Amino acid sequence: MSIHAPLVLASKSMARQAMLTTAGIDFVAAPTDFDETPLKRRYLAAGKPASALAATLAEAKARAASPEGADAVIIGADQVLTCEGRLFDKAPDKTGARSVLRQLSGRGHELHVAVCVLGPGTVVWRHESLARLWMRPLSDDFIDGYLEQAGGEVLWSVGCYQIEGLGVQLFERIEGDHFTIQGLPLLPLLDYLRRAGLIPA
Amino acid sequence: MSIHAPLVLASKSMARQAMLTTAGIDFVAAPTDFDETPLKRRYLAAGKPASALAATLAEAKARAASPEGADAVIIGADQVLTCEGRLFDKAPDKTGARSVLRQLSGRGHELHVAVCVLGPGTVVWRHESLARLWMRPLSDDFIDGYLEQAGGEVLWSVGCYQIEGLGVQLFERIEGDHFTIQGLPLLPLLDYLRRAGLIPA
Repeated sequence: MSIHAPLVLASKSMARQAMLTTAGIDFVAAPTDFDETPLKRRYLAAGKPASALAATLAEAKARAASPEGADAVIIGADQVLTCEGRLFDKAPDKTGARSVLRQLSGRGHELHVAVCVLGPGTVVWRHESLARLWMRPLSDDFIDGYLEQAGGEVLWSVGCYQIEGLGVQLFERIEGDHFTIQGLPLLPLLDYLRRAGLIPA
Repeated sequence: MSIHAPLVLASKSMARQAMLTTAGIDFVAAPTDFDETPLKRRYLAAGKPASALAATLAEAKARAASPEGADAVIIGADQVLTCEGRLFDKAPDKTGARSVLRQLSGRGHELHVAVCVLGPGTVVWRHESLARLWMRPLSDDFIDGYLEQAGGEVLWSVGCYQIEGLGVQLFERIEGDHFTIQGLPLLPLLDYLRRAGLIPA
């Protein structure tokens, strides 16, 4: 693959786009309006693990993205949140976000992140990673103040936080890679892109 | 201590200031022009550990900051880099940065971070943390391209990188907390500030 092949990020996530941009990677964002609900329901019904769901969604997003050209290389990524075995969906509004934070308050949760690279038609690389985070017990007053201050951005993330922003205030303990928590494990991804000649080594 | 006591950050580091700001913490930056060299030389001569040097420098910076008022609470922090037992100084210019990166290339290094909170006259809280990072083997061409693209900001950090920016391209492996790598372990600091009633809990 040529170093000039267009690199496509199949993600609506502003955090993922910002991570690649600040890491100095040239790419085109090709967000897909992909309805994850049926896939999620099927996974839940089959009792499959969250990591497998994240991997399937990452690949489905990559495949749904329109390639920029015949030799486009597409990065797909997905993040799934589980708390005590339960899968969480993105909150639709502030009321939903309040409910999510009340459920995560005082508990640990997991972020299962999958990323894949789709070459022409084929997945050429996959990676899965996991982060564990423990929210401190949050009062309703704190949650309301947090949601007020953080604004609509909290809805972009399934856990209703940006760890690189106000979200850090919610936690007492974090285990795992910061880039995984933000939804894109940069170190292994950049390593692959270098080995494949897609970014300068 | 009142929740309205002015919180002072005794640091010139833009990364530290940005971290507290994005975490939603109200503070005043009171950077001190503190010459670290004599203290460093004394520590080196005495063969003391890097973590002790970081702790001493963090406290010295906090003490050197002009308090905003009688009840000012001052946060001091310092980060010391060692590679194979050798202490590194900040590079003065691009040539120095090139030399630092050549020495860190293909090797592991440690970031020893100390943070303290100085109440009126007394250190009321201290914390030390450590991160380990492994740079991949970097070609001279890559280093030159990196320094060109990253610009003068690389000189702000002893390791000549911002992990939250282009710096991530330098690494093959990272162990340790992202906030520690950026020079301010936020989770334990925020925990202390909450317990002391200095920020909302």
